[in-house]
Amino acid sequence: LSDRPGEFDLIAKYFAPLAAGNPGALGLTDDAATLDPGPGNSIVVTADALVEGVHFLPDDPADSVASKLLRVNLSDLAAMGAEPMVYLITMALPRDWREDWVAAFAGGLASDQDEFSILMAGGDTVSTPGPLTLSLTAIGRVPAGSELRRTGAQPGDHLWVSGTVGDAGLGLRVLKGDLDGLSDPDRAYLIDRFRRPRPRVALGDRLRGIATAAIDVSDGLVADLGHICDCSKVGAAIHAGAIPLSPAARAAVDQGTATLAGIATAGDDFELLFTAPEGMGAHLREIARASGIEIAAIGSVGEGDGVRLLDEDDTEIALESRGFRHF
Amino acid sequence: LSDRPGEFDLIAKYFAPLAAGNPGALGLTDDAATLDPGPGNSIVVTADALVEGVHFLPDDPADSVASKLLRVNLSDLAAMGAEPMVYLITMALPRDWREDWVAAFAGGLASDQDEFSILMAGGDTVSTPGPLTLSLTAIGRVPAGSELRRTGAQPGDHLWVSGTVGDAGLGLRVLKGDLDGLSDPDRAYLIDRFRRPRPRVALGDRLRGIATAAIDVSDGLVADLGHICDCSKVGAAIHAGAIPLSPAARAAVDQGTATLAGIATAGDDFELLFTAPEGMGAHLREIARASGIEIAAIGSVGEGDGVRLLDEDDTEIALESRGFRHF
Repeated sequence: LSDRPGEFDLIAKYFAPLAAGNPGALGLTDDAATLDPGPGNSIVVTADALVEGVHFLPDDPADSVASKLLRVNLSDLAAMGAEPMVYLITMALPRDWREDWVAAFAGGLASDQDEFSILMAGGDTVSTPGPLTLSLTAIGRVPAGSELRRTGAQPGDHLWVSGTVGDAGLGLRVLKGDLDGLSDPDRAYLIDRFRRPRPRVALGDRLRGIATAAIDVSDGLVADLGHICDCSKVGAAIHAGAIPLSPAARAAVDQGTATLAGIATAGDDFELLFTAPEGMGAHLREIARASGIEIAAIGSVGEGDGVRLLDEDDTEIALESRGFRHF
Repeated sequence: LSDRPGEFDLIAKYFAPLAAGNPGALGLTDDAATLDPGPGNSIVVTADALVEGVHFLPDDPADSVASKLLRVNLSDLAAMGAEPMVYLITMALPRDWREDWVAAFAGGLASDQDEFSILMAGGDTVSTPGPLTLSLTAIGRVPAGSELRRTGAQPGDHLWVSGTVGDAGLGLRVLKGDLDGLSDPDRAYLIDRFRRPRPRVALGDRLRGIATAAIDVSDGLVADLGHICDCSKVGAAIHAGAIPLSPAARAAVDQGTATLAGIATAGDDFELLFTAPEGMGAHLREIARASGIEIAAIGSVGEGDGVRLLDEDDTEIALESRGFRHF
């Protein structure tokens, strides 16, 4: 470990290249970075932290940890309808950090920067006696006043979700050795869904002015819909049979190792959950096609409060847990 | 510990009030926050992390930890000449976190929000098996293109520093039981300087258009001047006898328990170090008076590279270390 680079060499070697396309980052050599959102735009900011052993596993590949860190924040920007601009990372590195880990981590960031059109603007690297602890602040922009909020859902609105639900939770179960009977490709697919969220930035960008409320599914479908209901002062019902499932999740349900109730309360999917007025279906499907992202209508908004999960007879399905608790 | 609030209650009780004056924070109940820098302004962003046992001591009062976390970032904004706007915090709380600690931490933030005109915009609270780990991103604004950089120092410029140098490093020595012979008031003063930096925001704001380069002193006077020299491709000399000392630091030097070389390489002072053309002294002193912050001329910029610390005979003083290494 004695050949490891010091802080400034580490920044110059691995992180400054990630800021190379961003003139406001000043080569990561100044006290702070500058950023110009352009006339008429508001800045959108969000931050999330990940801790080794809590949010990712010690064996997770470094590039997938980088992806997860960046993408959970990109998902928050997507849920606001914001266009990504820059991000800042703070890393608390454990005593035994290895340079090849940092190199792979930076490689994961570089790859995602290309995919999501975002650049590094700064950060901080420190030492910790504890586990690897990462924090990322993502900054985007929206035309002023047009950001997607959680507050606008109305009774009568339809409820939509992107992609497929439950995969990340099942992937974590596979990694923990707690889900048997699936094929190797299905197992690999679910693990990748856990490790590498797909933030729906291209969809969120197109939902501005159409969706009445939006959130990304991080705590679980039921819990996050509950946040929309609380903020919008409405209730909502999800038709369990309409929840979009991947072939791998469908296989687990068919084999009886997963339930729709479990899938509706599993976290970490980072799909977009949104509400839109009735009659917007055709337009929304066109938008989804343009984004290259599938969407599905899964329920509706009503008066009252709280979230109900309904079976095919419109009977409420009892839930053991409402979603992920952070501590 | 079983009565501790959950994540959402913790946010609602202690952190949402810190965002109450910031309509763009959306009550900390949405996916992200919005921010409008106003026409003609650029955003300035910076992030720093603090780890218990590394950057602050387990016994440091919670409100002073909050102050340090916010103020080290405010100091970076000051070094860019930026006006503070909002901040985001991510907290990784150890398993045995206590609600009264969080309450005192939030109280420290509230007090500093008033002092420095900054508001909370968001963040994340997670759990860690390791030590308390804090990360803060501060966001400010400057008229576009007018930010203070490290790159503009010219041979012939004079070198200035705000406040007094070396106090924080001596305060850390007091806390570690490694500095004897000082009076109780001097010890208390130095400890407070270590725990509670004074970011020179009011001075940085007034230095735009006047200072040719600026940095905040976090790694130590010599090391940070070295950063300016590297970025500006110049050399510099500090007159050790001109370094402004507090009465407490002066007492330690007079007693022989501290040296000017040690003071010039101690970190964590968070004073502003800046360069300005010759002949600006009267104007700079007027600006300093208006800011309520003392400044001192401590040396000059020349051709070449590197930093020399000179005694009263202009003989170079040998340095054991060039400044703080982060790991």
